[in-house]
Amino acid sequence: QELCDRQKNTNVRLSLPAVCIVWQTAMIILFGVFIRYNEESSPRWVEYRKAKNISSDIENDFYFRYPSFQDVHVMIFVGFGFLMTFLKRYSFGAVGFNFLIAAFGLQWALLMQGWFHSLDYSDGKIKIGIENLINADFCVAGCLIAYGAVLGKVSPVQLMVLTLFGITLFAVEEYIILDLIHAKDAGGSMVIHTFGGYYGLSISWMLYRPNLDQSSRLQGSVYHSDVFAMIGTLFLWMFWPSFNSAITDHGDGQHRAAINTYLALAATVLTTVAVSSLFQKHGKLDMVHIQNSTLAGGVAVGTAAEFMLMPYGSLIVGFCCGIVSTLGYIYLTPFMEKYMKIQDTCGIHNLHAMPGVIGGIVGAITAAAASESVYGHEGLINTFDFEGEFKDMVPTRQGGHQAAGLCVAICFGVGGGIIVGCILRLPIWGDAADDNCFDDEAYWEVPDDEETFPQVPQYNNHMRNKDV
Amino acid sequence: QELCDRQKNTNVRLSLPAVCIVWQTAMIILFGVFIRYNEESSPRWVEYRKAKNISSDIENDFYFRYPSFQDVHVMIFVGFGFLMTFLKRYSFGAVGFNFLIAAFGLQWALLMQGWFHSLDYSDGKIKIGIENLINADFCVAGCLIAYGAVLGKVSPVQLMVLTLFGITLFAVEEYIILDLIHAKDAGGSMVIHTFGGYYGLSISWMLYRPNLDQSSRLQGSVYHSDVFAMIGTLFLWMFWPSFNSAITDHGDGQHRAAINTYLALAATVLTTVAVSSLFQKHGKLDMVHIQNSTLAGGVAVGTAAEFMLMPYGSLIVGFCCGIVSTLGYIYLTPFMEKYMKIQDTCGIHNLHAMPGVIGGIVGAITAAAASESVYGHEGLINTFDFEGEFKDMVPTRQGGHQAAGLCVAICFGVGGGIIVGCILRLPIWGDAADDNCFDDEAYWEVPDDEETFPQVPQYNNHMRNKDV
Amino acid sequence: QELCDRQKNTNVRLSLPAVCIVWQTAMIILFGVFIRYNEESSPRWVEYRKAKNISSDIENDFYFRYPSFQDVHVMIFVGFGFLMTFLKRYSFGAVGFNFLIAAFGLQWALLMQGWFHSLDYSDGKIKIGIENLINADFCVAGCLIAYGAVLGKVSPVQLMVLTLFGITLFAVEEYIILDLIHAKDAGGSMVIHTFGGYYGLSISWMLYRPNLDQSSRLQGSVYHSDVFAMIGTLFLWMFWPSFNSAITDHGDGQHRAAINTYLALAATVLTTVAVSSLFQKHGKLDMVHIQNSTLAGGVAVGTAAEFMLMPYGSLIVGFCCGIVSTLGYIYLTPFMEKYMKIQDTCGIHNLHAMPGVIGGIVGAITAAAASESVYGHEGLINTFDFEGEFKDMVPTRQGGHQAAGLCVAICFGVGGGIIVGCILRLPIWGDAADDNCFDDEAYWEVPDDEETFPQVPQYNNHMRNKDV
Repeated sequence: QELCDRQKNTNVRLSLPAVCIVWQTAMIILFGVFIRYNEESSPRWVEYRKAKNISSDIENDFYFRYPSFQDVHVMIFVGFGFLMTFLKRYSFGAVGFNFLIAAFGLQWALLMQGWFHSLDYSDGKIKIGIENLINADFCVAGCLIAYGAVLGKVSPVQLMVLTLFGITLFAVEEYIILDLIHAKDAGGSMVIHTFGGYYGLSISWMLYRPNLDQSSRLQGSVYHSDVFAMIGTLFLWMFWPSFNSAITDHGDGQHRAAINTYLALAATVLTTVAVSSLFQKHGKLDMVHIQNSTLAGGVAVGTAAEFMLMPYGSLIVGFCCGIVSTLGYIYLTPFMEKYMKIQDTCGIHNLHAMPGVIGGIVGAITAAAASESVYGHEGLINTFDFEGEFKDMVPTRQGGHQAAGLCVAICFGVGGGIIVGCILRLPIWGDAADDNCFDDEAYWEVPDDEETFPQVPQYNNHMRNKDV
Repeated sequence: QELCDRQKNTNVRLSLPAVCIVWQTAMIILFGVFIRYNEESSPRWVEYRKAKNISSDIENDFYFRYPSFQDVHVMIFVGFGFLMTFLKRYSFGAVGFNFLIAAFGLQWALLMQGWFHSLDYSDGKIKIGIENLINADFCVAGCLIAYGAVLGKVSPVQLMVLTLFGITLFAVEEYIILDLIHAKDAGGSMVIHTFGGYYGLSISWMLYRPNLDQSSRLQGSVYHSDVFAMIGTLFLWMFWPSFNSAITDHGDGQHRAAINTYLALAATVLTTVAVSSLFQKHGKLDMVHIQNSTLAGGVAVGTAAEFMLMPYGSLIVGFCCGIVSTLGYIYLTPFMEKYMKIQDTCGIHNLHAMPGVIGGIVGAITAAAASESVYGHEGLINTFDFEGEFKDMVPTRQGGHQAAGLCVAICFGVGGGIIVGCILRLPIWGDAADDNCFDDEAYWEVPDDEETFPQVPQYNNHMRNKDV
Repeated sequence: QELCDRQKNTNVRLSLPAVCIVWQTAMIILFGVFIRYNEESSPRWVEYRKAKNISSDIENDFYFRYPSFQDVHVMIFVGFGFLMTFLKRYSFGAVGFNFLIAAFGLQWALLMQGWFHSLDYSDGKIKIGIENLINADFCVAGCLIAYGAVLGKVSPVQLMVLTLFGITLFAVEEYIILDLIHAKDAGGSMVIHTFGGYYGLSISWMLYRPNLDQSSRLQGSVYHSDVFAMIGTLFLWMFWPSFNSAITDHGDGQHRAAINTYLALAATVLTTVAVSSLFQKHGKLDMVHIQNSTLAGGVAVGTAAEFMLMPYGSLIVGFCCGIVSTLGYIYLTPFMEKYMKIQDTCGIHNLHAMPGVIGGIVGAITAAAASESVYGHEGLINTFDFEGEFKDMVPTRQGGHQAAGLCVAICFGVGGGIIVGCILRLPIWGDAADDNCFDDEAYWEVPDDEETFPQVPQYNNHMRNKDV
């Protein structure tokens, strides 16, 4: 009976393979034309080392960043993927489509970010190393955040389109914020979370489904799916210090970013638990909050993690974000769905968009308050890159630039989302009907679970000490 | 009907938020007063590096310890959290409360351990870096071990109290053992596992519930919950080499500790399997043993991992611990519950307390047997820190100090547990009634799983090849 | 009724403990005689450092390789273990026996590989450090691959025998390929995947069960077991860059191997999705392909990852492997079962054997095409170890040696598998009857799941908004 109600055709048998094969072929060609190893990942490293008088292989950037890279990689694929498995019948789509679009997105990101940041003008090639891989993963994160808003409501082909444009917008927005405006955003509160959050919310707004309650039977979780989602939550939470420190300066920059993130996240857990308990009847905790709001502190220290936010400053940021994010789940998400026509499956507004904006503001304030007495003369220059064309920059002005960066991120997110949302409304993408959302049956061969259950009556014969 | 039998009120709607908000606020204030970055995590690192003639940023302690730190972090949150998800209906509580108390505990640990170990007397501030984060995670581990003994029987508020006092006791005990007694315990066999184990067991003894069999329907596992628990087991097992090497000496110290732990754990797996099979009817393996006893070897080489335990020595320790721990689960846990009124949900006596004591003894013997012929002159001094006021120390005497340290850990565990257990018996904490233990319903909004199951009869119509 | 049909006795109550205890005791004795710390993991490191004029502890090999080691360790225990949990009722066996044989195998591998590669002829001892641990994990991987072919059809005692001989064969084969033939194979396309794949397939061929369809009710997955398997898939996928770079040269070697593997795996995901969708009715994706074929690219760049494969070359390899592997699952696995009497539970032919052979060929071609213009003079020598007795080697000849290495791997796999398969056919090992395969009941105490299910009718009373 499930099948006969469908008005829409979710068969992606031609479109999905076509998109995957064609785009992957395009990647091979573009990589062939543009992408090469940089001096630290090519065999000429031996000569480079000698020329630069580098005393040991351990000073190859690989060893500064590879552990963080792997942690970020886990966040992208296991963290984001499993965080979205909470729905009772959309775990395949959550973890599987997350896998697909991340694997495509990182290739396109290497190209897009490479053209802006790693182009060697001497030969017109993009030279890549470990830092490019981290940045590609970061870039992908923006699109995965957006996926959270539309989880269960779009087809894999739509997700590929969302990712293609998302990566492109990201790279441009990032170039404007980091290079032109000279804002700092190592942990990506603005460029990743604010952009990704509003990008996804705008798309979700454009794809509003008034009759989504037709699939309400599938919108909740079951016991085990909530436990699976905690795998995602915890790997995101644990490795967030690596996320925020992965591309900060060698030495104290990475060290401090990790400490600040560690502390902010710890504080968030406590206020999330407090608010979750306080606003539920009987004081019972809600897994939605524990799975999501506990991460808000990591988002919100993204920009300032490498600054002198101070340990107590990190705790304060985490404290506030746990409260704001949990209240967002309780009040704002239902409000947005009812009155603003924004259906936000994973509540990314509470986990990424709002904390991202908070992070941008915290970054601006912290930057504006910087001084040589706190950072030291060289420390101030190093931390904020007051070098080259920005050697006359001062902290207060840097604070203004940070704020400008935040505005750019919001504009790109909202504007880009509306445009891409329009494209995704075309009736060619194979998305599911309203009563068929949040159901892996649409795009996956789902195993029948019956073989296990019929044994229940049989088991009952052997039951001892049964008190039901 | 489940609700009407309750004599106790598990509503923590006021107490839990109050504890979380007040204590987190206290943390912010104390961090504001006391905690600052150390010279390796502050922007003054550039100047410090030059002053100390350090040639590269890669010599920042961050790069020596960050990969191990992240592994330890995974052990604390995923390892301990998922290890306890084995109960059929307490997975939310296992992983969620583990998350809560670890997030609180690490903040309090940074303060408590900081006052003892990282206080800069020139300005009265605690200066923190990556090693402090690792030690905070270690400190938390003691409380999470204790949680294992009382899993399913206490309220989150009780767990917060358990953690507050546990961290405090830990810091004092650790200071006495490591600084005053000058015992070495890099992997924490004594300070973490012995202390944490007896702390939890004493609390469980104080909180003895004679009618706990009223919730016996919930005390077992189901198939999937056992698989979830294996996630915890494996992440603990795999990352234990990082746990034991995280704060050992740079260079050979970390290297050797990792090797010894790797080997001890491997041997433990084989003897655990052997004993589990041998003592069950039909030779069938028991998941309880595989989930827990396989880890005992890692506990027991904690103290000696950085010493010259030798590869075969590590195997011997692991060999013995697999046997002892599995036999503990088979014989000792039921005995303790029946005759000693100690209800040990996760069997921490077998996984932490006994192996911890074995580890302390192995450490004492290995230290007493140390000699310059094996360690080299400098190696002996470096390994045992025979410097400063201990420059006249000799290995045999060090062995005695190790044994003294073990006694202190046991005393603090038992004594502290009894006192804290008394406090937790007060009728104000919102713990569950006997027939309501091991049930997430008490403190969590649990999703109804009915949506999935009613489809079973419907599926049956499509069943082919069915032989039931 | 399940019990009464059995013709075979799966009771391993004597044999399994005996094998575990005796072999573990043998390990202790052999470790006592042979295994010692090397100069970087012994306390004499301080003196060694000074003698070698090494400026910092950070240049201890531990810091170059430990993060990769831990990633490899996760792949071995969580990756391989959880990848095999896809069967509805063999998750305990998948993750538990994987754990057992890996823990035994790594000890035996340290000895076997040590005799060939790390024997200090001055005192007849094997000197171990972090690289030995990585190689031991690699060696174990070969046996775990073989386990995939016989998953659910063999007893744990058979698996121990499979591992004992598998490790032995591996060490000999590896010595011939790497040392005698001087082929390069850092990521083990040949020595690990090709060998392990054909070893397992040959054993499965020898153990052919014509009536295996008697347990067909247990050969599929259920919804949650597919999600568990994705944990294995993702940890293998994410950490494969560490696998392929773990033992490559310091500096650019590790850096490049990680980049190439990262890219190859990304491309594989897209073509796997494309082929999976294209060849299924309605274009629905099959979890078997997503779980397995997405990894083929990592296998196939194993040999060439450290060479100048170029980023686009990595993408091409990944592109092809995704297609080949997925088509293998669709057409080749059923063909092999029907016509070649090879029952390959996990499809290791598609995931390891074929991609391994492709990897060997890609390695041979890439090596043969190497030139000083691309690698630089020193880079070429470093990358291919054209030193010592091989200082007159040239790239084209190296290509031939690579091809020879591939042949050796196939021969050892097929030949070794047939011999070991013969041994495993002896009627003494406690394997299950045909109608009892793929069932954890045979070797595990499996919890009754009934306690949860009887509550369903009770829950129904509270059900609201139910539309079934």
